[in-house]
Amino acid sequence: MAGSELTNLKSPRVKAARRLTKRAFRDQDRKFLAEGPQAVREALKLDGVTLELFTTAEAELRHPELVTEATLQGVPVHRASGEVLAELSQTVTPQGLLAVCRLVHVPLEEAVPATPRLVAVLAHVRDPGNAGTVMRAADAAGADAVVFTDASVDPYNGKCVRASAGSLFHLPVVIGTPAAVAARHLRERGLRVLAADGAGKHTLDDVDLSGPTAWIFGNEAWGLPEEVLAEADDVVRVPIYGQAESLNLATAAAVCLYSSARSQRVP
Amino acid sequence: MAGSELTNLKSPRVKAARRLTKRAFRDQDRKFLAEGPQAVREALKLDGVTLELFTTAEAELRHPELVTEATLQGVPVHRASGEVLAELSQTVTPQGLLAVCRLVHVPLEEAVPATPRLVAVLAHVRDPGNAGTVMRAADAAGADAVVFTDASVDPYNGKCVRASAGSLFHLPVVIGTPAAVAARHLRERGLRVLAADGAGKHTLDDVDLSGPTAWIFGNEAWGLPEEVLAEADDVVRVPIYGQAESLNLATAAAVCLYSSARSQRVP
Repeated sequence: MAGSELTNLKSPRVKAARRLTKRAFRDQDRKFLAEGPQAVREALKLDGVTLELFTTAEAELRHPELVTEATLQGVPVHRASGEVLAELSQTVTPQGLLAVCRLVHVPLEEAVPATPRLVAVLAHVRDPGNAGTVMRAADAAGADAVVFTDASVDPYNGKCVRASAGSLFHLPVVIGTPAAVAARHLRERGLRVLAADGAGKHTLDDVDLSGPTAWIFGNEAWGLPEEVLAEADDVVRVPIYGQAESLNLATAAAVCLYSSARSQRVP
Repeated sequence: MAGSELTNLKSPRVKAARRLTKRAFRDQDRKFLAEGPQAVREALKLDGVTLELFTTAEAELRHPELVTEATLQGVPVHRASGEVLAELSQTVTPQGLLAVCRLVHVPLEEAVPATPRLVAVLAHVRDPGNAGTVMRAADAAGADAVVFTDASVDPYNGKCVRASAGSLFHLPVVIGTPAAVAARHLRERGLRVLAADGAGKHTLDDVDLSGPTAWIFGNEAWGLPEEVLAEADDVVRVPIYGQAESLNLATAAAVCLYSSARSQRVP
C-alpha cells in the first residue's frame, strides 16, 4: 500500500485519474479507467496494462487477490476513501475498485489474424452501452476482433467498458478506421462482409453463414449509410416474425454473431 | 383540444398522471404511462387502451396523425407546456408525447393460445431495461406471449415500456405468476420448458429446438433459483466460444428466442 488513505478529492493523483472520464484527456494521456472487480481482474490478466489501482479498504477486504496480483505486478495501489472512488466512478453505485489502464487497441492489420473467422465492425454506433454489449457478445461468440469505425463511440468510455464486462481486454479492438477501409481490408483477408440492416434484401434465414464473416453494425436510429452498404458483399436483416418494428442494436448484433458462430461450428 | 395549455405542475390532472411513475399508484389506479411517439402510436392501435394524451404544441406539429387518431377515438388530448411533459417524463430528453393507458396484461390462461409455439418467461428479472428489451426480442421472434413472474420487475415501469419499443402493446403479457406455476401451465399446453442458465448441461447447439418451446430467463446476476430449474424440462446455456464469462441477459434471451424461432421455421 503506497502511503496513507487518499481522501482529498483535489489531490493531483485523484485529479489525474478523474480527467480520464473525458475522451479528450484519455486520448492525450493514452489511458482510461476500468471500474469494478470484473474489469480490474481482466485488466490484470494482461501484461503491463494496469498502471494504477484505486481501492477502498472495504473493496480490498472483498477482493484481496486483486490487490495482491496488482502488487506482484508492481502496480501502485492507492487506498482511497469511498468519496474519492465515487469521484472517479461513473456509476451510481461505485464498486470501490478502479484501475487506470493504458489503451489496449491495436492497428487493424495486427488485430485480424491470418485466417480470421468472425469479426464485428461497429459503424456509427453511438450508444456506449450498446457498443459494450456488442463487444461482450462478439467475445462470447468467439469473434477474432472488434473494429470501432471513426464515427463510433469511444470504446474506452466508462459505460462502454462496463457493458463489455471485461471483453475489452479479451479480444483485439481496433479504433478509428473508416468503415469502408475496414470493409475492404476484411474482405482482402478472406471474410465475407455482411452489413446488418433492417432494409436488407436477405434475412439470416436465407444466407449461408458457414464461411468466414465480418458483420458491420450501424447506428441505433438510422442504420448504415449508403456508402457502407455499398461496400458490403450483402445486406442482411434479422427476420422479424412478430409485430416489432426492429430489434435493439445490441440484440440484433448478438443474433447475427451467434448465427455465424453456430453455422461455422454446427454441421 | 380540451381547453388551454396546461402549465401548472400542481394541477390535479398533472398530479394524477405524475403519480403513475410509481408502481404502487399504477397498481391502485390500474393505469400506466407510455411515452414517445412510438409507444403512443402502438397504444392507439389497441381499442380502449389510451385514456388520455398529453402533448406539447411542438410534438403536435410533428405527429398530427397521432393527435387526430386520439381525437377520433374520443381520447381527451391535453396540450401542455414542455415543463409539464418534463415533469411526467422519466427520460432525460422528453419527447413531448405521453399517453395515460389502462393496464394491458391478461391472465395466463388467456395469454397462451391453444397451440402455442414460443413463450418467454421472465423470472426474477429486475432490470427494467433488460425486461423491456426481452419483450421486444420476444415480439420480434414471433413469441405468443411474455410472462413476468411475481418476482420480476413491473412491465409498466417507464424504462421497461420504453425499452420494449411498443412491444408491450403487441403481444399478450402476463404478470405476477409464480415461475413454477407458469412452467407447469406452459408444459400442460404442450410447450417444452427450457430454463436458460449459464450452468446448463446442454447448450443451444445440442438441443432440438424445432418443437414448441417456453424459455425461462432468470436474474441478471444470479440466474435462476433451484426450484425454477427443477421445474424445467431441461436447462440450456448459450455456448460461449470466446473468453466472455457470460452474456448480458437480454442478449442471451434474444439468442435463445431466435434460435427457437428459426429452428421452428427453417428446415
